[in-house]
Amino acid sequence: MDREINKNNEVSQALKKITYGYYIVTSRKDSEEMSTRDKDFVAAGTISWVSQGSFEPPLVTVAVKKQSDLHETIEKSRKFAINIVGKDHKDMLSSFAKDSTVEDNKLNGFSFTDGKTGSPILDDVPAFIECEIREEVTIGDHSIFVGEVVNAGTRDAGAVPLVEWEAGMHYGG
Amino acid sequence: MDREINKNNEVSQALKKITYGYYIVTSRKDSEEMSTRDKDFVAAGTISWVSQGSFEPPLVTVAVKKQSDLHETIEKSRKFAINIVGKDHKDMLSSFAKDSTVEDNKLNGFSFTDGKTGSPILDDVPAFIECEIREEVTIGDHSIFVGEVVNAGTRDAGAVPLVEWEAGMHYGG
Repeated sequence: MDREINKNNEVSQALKKITYGYYIVTSRKDSEEMSTRDKDFVAAGTISWVSQGSFEPPLVTVAVKKQSDLHETIEKSRKFAINIVGKDHKDMLSSFAKDSTVEDNKLNGFSFTDGKTGSPILDDVPAFIECEIREEVTIGDHSIFVGEVVNAGTRDAGAVPLVEWEAGMHYGG
Repeated sequence: MDREINKNNEVSQALKKITYGYYIVTSRKDSEEMSTRDKDFVAAGTISWVSQGSFEPPLVTVAVKKQSDLHETIEKSRKFAINIVGKDHKDMLSSFAKDSTVEDNKLNGFSFTDGKTGSPILDDVPAFIECEIREEVTIGDHSIFVGEVVNAGTRDAGAVPLVEWEAGMHYGG
């Protein structure tokens, strides 16, 4: 009986030992829909739950909270970009915890360019990965998007990614 | 044209910037099948591609290479355990790079007990997570198993997990 009562805590505590980096995941609705919304309708969010899922074809899984702007935008565009946060850019985490706004060609204060998928690619990240969705698992409170990599780039090959244990903020449990 | 030629390298280089921990994933075939094989038919492997996928229900994704003993065993048992490797147990990585063998109640040299799912739980890990498979994505060279957490435990709440950047071995790209 005690074990049942404690079960959720045990599960949560163990899940907190999974290691993640930090990723600013972005997406943009396609142009037809854009015309009925703001011209720069983009969504972005800080995401931890990212993993590769295959070498050939190159697949990546990204779990995004349902009922979020980012989730809605990815559902419609079927595309997203993963901007890998570097060790020196802890400031991105709090900036992208807020709603997404584009002002003066900056997304939440960070300059960007449009990727091949239309998703914003932040200028200040060590590397980025763009994906098109191939499969989707929707049984949980996050959708697990399985994306095939259609474009990628590295801006700073030597830059070290930011790891959750260093940032002192953990998403999971 | 140059971009096409370089594409694979660019994709690989960017994918190498995703951060992972290390996990010894284990599974055991159920008893009916066990009778036709060794009595301790278990499979284990060092896996990097692990991520949480939902809080409620608690889901975890694990990508396992097709054509491996571990993959075959999980496919049959529909269950697995994730043993989280601690910073002080880098030695586990090379031990579990070999074929799985059970001798003197040790799995590849490490003592273990059977978890709720029958999967071996290593005594020397900070925490473990046991899952039953709910969904499976098979379009790549790895199967992405989406497991629901059915049991979990922490042996050492203060232990720090081993991160790939520290171990100098990266799976991905």
